[in-house]
Amino acid sequence: MTVEGDRGSRGRDIGRVWMKSDVKKTADTTAGRLRTEWAGRYMPVLGQVRQRFLKEKPLKGVRLAACLHITSETANLAQTLAAGGAEVALCASNPLSTNDEVAAALAEMDGMSVFGIKGEDNETYYGHINATIDMKPVITMDDGADLVSMLHGERKDDAARVTGGTEETTTGVIRLRSLAGQGLLRYPIIAVNDAQTKHFFDNRYGTGQSTIDGILRSTNLLLAGASFVVCGYGWCGRGVAMRARGMGSNVIVCEVDPLRALEAVMDGYRVMSLDEAAAVGDVFVTVTGDCKVLAGPHFERMKDGAIIANSGHFNVEIDIPALEKASKSKRTVRPFVEEYEMKDGRRLHLLGEGRLINLAAAEGHPASVMDMSFANQALSAEYLVREAKKLEKAVHGVPQEIDSRIARIKLETMGISIDQLTAEQEEYLSSWESGT
Amino acid sequence: MTVEGDRGSRGRDIGRVWMKSDVKKTADTTAGRLRTEWAGRYMPVLGQVRQRFLKEKPLKGVRLAACLHITSETANLAQTLAAGGAEVALCASNPLSTNDEVAAALAEMDGMSVFGIKGEDNETYYGHINATIDMKPVITMDDGADLVSMLHGERKDDAARVTGGTEETTTGVIRLRSLAGQGLLRYPIIAVNDAQTKHFFDNRYGTGQSTIDGILRSTNLLLAGASFVVCGYGWCGRGVAMRARGMGSNVIVCEVDPLRALEAVMDGYRVMSLDEAAAVGDVFVTVTGDCKVLAGPHFERMKDGAIIANSGHFNVEIDIPALEKASKSKRTVRPFVEEYEMKDGRRLHLLGEGRLINLAAAEGHPASVMDMSFANQALSAEYLVREAKKLEKAVHGVPQEIDSRIARIKLETMGISIDQLTAEQEEYLSSWESGT
Amino acid sequence: MTVEGDRGSRGRDIGRVWMKSDVKKTADTTAGRLRTEWAGRYMPVLGQVRQRFLKEKPLKGVRLAACLHITSETANLAQTLAAGGAEVALCASNPLSTNDEVAAALAEMDGMSVFGIKGEDNETYYGHINATIDMKPVITMDDGADLVSMLHGERKDDAARVTGGTEETTTGVIRLRSLAGQGLLRYPIIAVNDAQTKHFFDNRYGTGQSTIDGILRSTNLLLAGASFVVCGYGWCGRGVAMRARGMGSNVIVCEVDPLRALEAVMDGYRVMSLDEAAAVGDVFVTVTGDCKVLAGPHFERMKDGAIIANSGHFNVEIDIPALEKASKSKRTVRPFVEEYEMKDGRRLHLLGEGRLINLAAAEGHPASVMDMSFANQALSAEYLVREAKKLEKAVHGVPQEIDSRIARIKLETMGISIDQLTAEQEEYLSSWESGT
Amino acid sequence: MTVEGDRGSRGRDIGRVWMKSDVKKTADTTAGRLRTEWAGRYMPVLGQVRQRFLKEKPLKGVRLAACLHITSETANLAQTLAAGGAEVALCASNPLSTNDEVAAALAEMDGMSVFGIKGEDNETYYGHINATIDMKPVITMDDGADLVSMLHGERKDDAARVTGGTEETTTGVIRLRSLAGQGLLRYPIIAVNDAQTKHFFDNRYGTGQSTIDGILRSTNLLLAGASFVVCGYGWCGRGVAMRARGMGSNVIVCEVDPLRALEAVMDGYRVMSLDEAAAVGDVFVTVTGDCKVLAGPHFERMKDGAIIANSGHFNVEIDIPALEKASKSKRTVRPFVEEYEMKDGRRLHLLGEGRLINLAAAEGHPASVMDMSFANQALSAEYLVREAKKLEKAVHGVPQEIDSRIARIKLETMGISIDQLTAEQEEYLSSWESGT
Repeated sequence: MTVEGDRGSRGRDIGRVWMKSDVKKTADTTAGRLRTEWAGRYMPVLGQVRQRFLKEKPLKGVRLAACLHITSETANLAQTLAAGGAEVALCASNPLSTNDEVAAALAEMDGMSVFGIKGEDNETYYGHINATIDMKPVITMDDGADLVSMLHGERKDDAARVTGGTEETTTGVIRLRSLAGQGLLRYPIIAVNDAQTKHFFDNRYGTGQSTIDGILRSTNLLLAGASFVVCGYGWCGRGVAMRARGMGSNVIVCEVDPLRALEAVMDGYRVMSLDEAAAVGDVFVTVTGDCKVLAGPHFERMKDGAIIANSGHFNVEIDIPALEKASKSKRTVRPFVEEYEMKDGRRLHLLGEGRLINLAAAEGHPASVMDMSFANQALSAEYLVREAKKLEKAVHGVPQEIDSRIARIKLETMGISIDQLTAEQEEYLSSWESGT
Repeated sequence: MTVEGDRGSRGRDIGRVWMKSDVKKTADTTAGRLRTEWAGRYMPVLGQVRQRFLKEKPLKGVRLAACLHITSETANLAQTLAAGGAEVALCASNPLSTNDEVAAALAEMDGMSVFGIKGEDNETYYGHINATIDMKPVITMDDGADLVSMLHGERKDDAARVTGGTEETTTGVIRLRSLAGQGLLRYPIIAVNDAQTKHFFDNRYGTGQSTIDGILRSTNLLLAGASFVVCGYGWCGRGVAMRARGMGSNVIVCEVDPLRALEAVMDGYRVMSLDEAAAVGDVFVTVTGDCKVLAGPHFERMKDGAIIANSGHFNVEIDIPALEKASKSKRTVRPFVEEYEMKDGRRLHLLGEGRLINLAAAEGHPASVMDMSFANQALSAEYLVREAKKLEKAVHGVPQEIDSRIARIKLETMGISIDQLTAEQEEYLSSWESGT
Repeated sequence: MTVEGDRGSRGRDIGRVWMKSDVKKTADTTAGRLRTEWAGRYMPVLGQVRQRFLKEKPLKGVRLAACLHITSETANLAQTLAAGGAEVALCASNPLSTNDEVAAALAEMDGMSVFGIKGEDNETYYGHINATIDMKPVITMDDGADLVSMLHGERKDDAARVTGGTEETTTGVIRLRSLAGQGLLRYPIIAVNDAQTKHFFDNRYGTGQSTIDGILRSTNLLLAGASFVVCGYGWCGRGVAMRARGMGSNVIVCEVDPLRALEAVMDGYRVMSLDEAAAVGDVFVTVTGDCKVLAGPHFERMKDGAIIANSGHFNVEIDIPALEKASKSKRTVRPFVEEYEMKDGRRLHLLGEGRLINLAAAEGHPASVMDMSFANQALSAEYLVREAKKLEKAVHGVPQEIDSRIARIKLETMGISIDQLTAEQEEYLSSWESGT
Repeated sequence: MTVEGDRGSRGRDIGRVWMKSDVKKTADTTAGRLRTEWAGRYMPVLGQVRQRFLKEKPLKGVRLAACLHITSETANLAQTLAAGGAEVALCASNPLSTNDEVAAALAEMDGMSVFGIKGEDNETYYGHINATIDMKPVITMDDGADLVSMLHGERKDDAARVTGGTEETTTGVIRLRSLAGQGLLRYPIIAVNDAQTKHFFDNRYGTGQSTIDGILRSTNLLLAGASFVVCGYGWCGRGVAMRARGMGSNVIVCEVDPLRALEAVMDGYRVMSLDEAAAVGDVFVTVTGDCKVLAGPHFERMKDGAIIANSGHFNVEIDIPALEKASKSKRTVRPFVEEYEMKDGRRLHLLGEGRLINLAAAEGHPASVMDMSFANQALSAEYLVREAKKLEKAVHGVPQEIDSRIARIKLETMGISIDQLTAEQEEYLSSWESGT
């Protein structure tokens, strides 16, 4: 693979070796720009950060490699980082999630280095990640930790110059904690995912809505009355469950954690083992962060016509090789819908090749939630520029102060005012004498 | 306009003058066929009717003109009618709602007369309706009463040979009742819309889900936390309100009927006049069946960024001329999103040109609900062939027996069994002596 | 039984033979009065009727026998009727539903004839109905048709002087329609139950909330996570299902009507036969209007600890004799909770002796819904005084005009304003020419 | 106050100075016992602990003072502790929350020292706490930290012999953390409140349901359509909001924390300042843990008929002195409902004197949630007996192992089975190499 190949080197030549792009050549950049502006309207918090960055240039001269879903929201983040003075190289964090129009617009109109083409193969995918490392970043931004993994694997030598990084997802944070736990992490990471203004909103409301959206766009299935199985009751899972119920489905939750399973019961859902659920579900969605959640034995039990989708980060949650093996043929019956005919004649429908359905078949999280996630990203990058050297090589939370400020600005932009504690109330909360 | 023009006369020539089509030439018929099969999977009740029709041919030789949204579900209905022996001519009931792939597949693969191209202009639209009348139908099927209106207007002479018709929508039924009330209706109509298995499901669950779907596809807006104004609290309106709440919106209902308004209050929604709602809504959806529901004074009060959509039958619910007049410019910012810039700088976003958003930007009602609506259509057509001559020239309900049978089959196909009254319980219900 | 016995003849002697009462002697009339006033606060529509009645005296001299649940809301109705000039005799329509304090206050403070003592035996119950007939009523008001049944049975002779009546419940209307159908109904009845401002609100929101309330008061059971079986998906049943889900229960619906069963499926509930549901339910509520809904075979399959309640009008919905027979012992374990120990050791808990749990263990419908039901009663009584002679001996609906007026006043008292159709909109709705 | 006074010294004399009780003399102990058994049925996890305690006697000879709401669930905890060998002295943690029948049954039938009478005055309340300290406890159990506060205030000398304690509530934990923060805490405390099986369930599902229950029992208000203001969106607040919405109310949330406020917005509630909410609410519930949440300026703006309740731990959340001052008279209009007539004629209704409404007017958390809270209490007491000496004088969490075990047993007792991670899945979760 030649990243600077003619497939789409659309960046303007601005005289730097790495300042190249690989995007879809034929993509409509005007449409990409309009999409980016549309998203920007729903990202007022990031917009405020951008205004300040333009003035203060806190990222001046910082080389930043970002491995993120290349969507219209990400384009707003990239522009914000650039407004702060950073040199940004952006690559896709998933082969299916790139919006080609948006990517092309960023490369051509903003002159940014962008590497991502919807539907790229694995070789291209990793080539794109490599391309961002070629720009010698000092800060990394990850969504699933593929970039940081490469910097701890085959591109180890390039890790030395990195001073810090951020990570967007639960999955990535799990991987990075594991790395740090083994003493192998080579620079400090800010777990943007752990910011309350991120995971409370993005994982729950974002994944919830966009997963439903992806399923509807790919199937046009009536959700009312359908038995909808949600595998995993973390923040993402409860978002999906809540919205599926909101659309009239009868929701079944499968979990491995007894506490979360109990919460699902109390929330009014049926809870059962996946073996039991497999036989009754009309739709299955995995959001666990783990592998082989839906596997051979489940496919055996599913009903004719069952629909299977994943909204977790990686496409390992559904054991596709097992599905391939158990079926006698497959064909595409609608965009994003593969029909597997099983040996006994049942047909199972896999959506979006098992990749995150909200990005594969829909547009990912709405801009309004990404607003806060990406404000966290931008402010964490600024924080790293100032503080990375003082931080341990570990996974750190987003500073509380950043988190609260983002929530407060978000409310303001919605025209909502809330109360403040009076001095007496503050004091009451911190006293222990007052009682019954 | 030449209906047999080269824009798409794809029907096989089967030796009859009227057996022509006008569909999109370049449309992918294989995709259309797959879509039609996909819908068919979720239409088991209609499927059972089709199997019987194939054997019994109850519509043998009947010329039937159908003016319906040309979707993959309608294709299944058309095939069912043809299976029953009917000669079917199908035209679009809305200029924006045709699925070109499906239309082309019907024309080319089934050899049916199909007249509809997504985005056709008004002249073509009415030309298509005329084309179906040219086939000299004895039965009509309407969705909005445009076909029957033409047969009572400029094509009056052709009404004489029509023995009966059906009507799918609330809007159409209102128009036809008005016509009958004035003594002008020239043949009996079965109000399919009034079947319980139709309007309880199609209007509520179908419109509810597909309206949300259309809004998401066109805007990718985060519904959670949005103020969502539903104008009209009929069956469609309560479907939309229920689903908007299910997606996390804060729903406001506007109504003119005090009883429905009270129901909305008790259902936990805020109820207010449109004047008040205009100032607080983030999204507005009209589903009233009436005209100028959202009009000049409302546009004046709306917030910058407000989103306006219609899910009622005709695009008269939003007063678009008033919107045009109040704005200084407009541009398309996303597919199906027109941004109007108002004189004071506010931007209002009109979706799908004010046509039903669930068909304009999404795929209309899911097949599973259309299954029952269209089983009613097919069985009503069969009923008309047998009984039309005995019926008054009025609007009639679907025979109760048809309605119940459809519900019962639907449950069976879902694998659900319900109880039956015992003889003792039947008797108890019909007695008056037993008391406290 | 001597109705004027010393158990509670508390009415002031106002010189008429029938002006006696039988209420609980020791009841606290001040508390009863306060309860009545409390309810009155939430009955502004009835309050407006009362103000007008006071001035216009439309019921002047009319003898009216009312067989209703004697609650604080009914007290407001009785006072309104009296304000209109009627002479009212009130008896209980259920042996368990009388609020003794309220009954005593009405008798003593308002000098009304009141016959009802909570927990009265069957003999007393029918004695009380007889007592109201002794006052020679010309108008009857029923809640379940026990009064009218007696006037068509053993007190036939007294039916001659009755000019008309009203009926409050679905159950009563079913009985009366059966009576009319057999040509036996001796005077016209207004089915107050069929008013939209009655059954849309009272049956759904009233029964829904108060059934949950009755179950909580009698059991203090955690509803979140419980499997809650609702038998019957009429207006009452859907109210109960909606509220049970709102409290976090996993709701299962059992129905005999396929259409309603389908609606329940689409509303997201599980639907199954009672045989299946019996084995999985934690709580069972019957709201069908029919007999032996929960019977021997179901009791056999229920889990240890199952809770069984009825919210339908009569206590025939649960087959208590079968339960008695299948069990080896019973005891009261909490107020309103009978524990039946089955032969295999399982314990089933019957609430409120199978009588309507919302009145037995809670306070019945909240005043706010009874406001509209009883405004319908009062205005229907007024209508009967004027029009009864012209009406057929059949079951009639509440005049539409009364229904709409009540809805409109109710909204006004809530401070809610709604829109009105413009002339153009009115015209549009009644035209058939305007189309796509 | 003489705690051993004749008001209720019903304990059997078992030869120890402190083995006395002060409970309501006339209470029906049989009813109290039945209530305790009823609760026990819904406490299977605590039941399993009790069985083991009976065999293993892990608390043998331990003197334990418990200041808890004396309900039927607490009785089960007390019996479990006694089964483990502890000598238990139990006093009320709130003057209004004692169930007299249960308290009397515990004292008389179990021979336990119980100090609590519903409605006791402040002097008696503190006398009762003192009485438990008189028994020279080595372990304390608190619900709101009043017992531990006394041991750090006027009974300081008695703190020396205490080795550890537990605390049930958020409020208590806040107070204790403040104490520990000032370096004043004299023995280690296990924050039972912080166990996930406690606060995720008890605070949310318990408080949610029982608050609604308390409001219904005291007012019989129709919640459908009411504007319901929830002050505080912590675990308790979101439980109350969720249930109020489930009953059909239109819920408004007031918060001081921007993040929680945002969550409430995304959950579909309206969020506004209390000043704004005061003018629109029909019902107000405080669940903040702070003081003067509803105060003078809010009372000024409330509508005639507004209902005010508190479900937070202490009755300081509503500024009752301010309410008294702003009103010209008050009277009790229903049990637990005080009507304040304001100077301008508006009437405000305060429920349960501002004390936690779920205990004042209803029965507190259902047994099923207390099951887990109290299993945590019992197992934490066992843990303290073993480990207290090794613990710092600080507030500690419940050991994770206890928390998980409780969740697992709870699910088992509900007949629910969940999945377990495979070895491959465990490994996947802890690896960082596997990627896209």
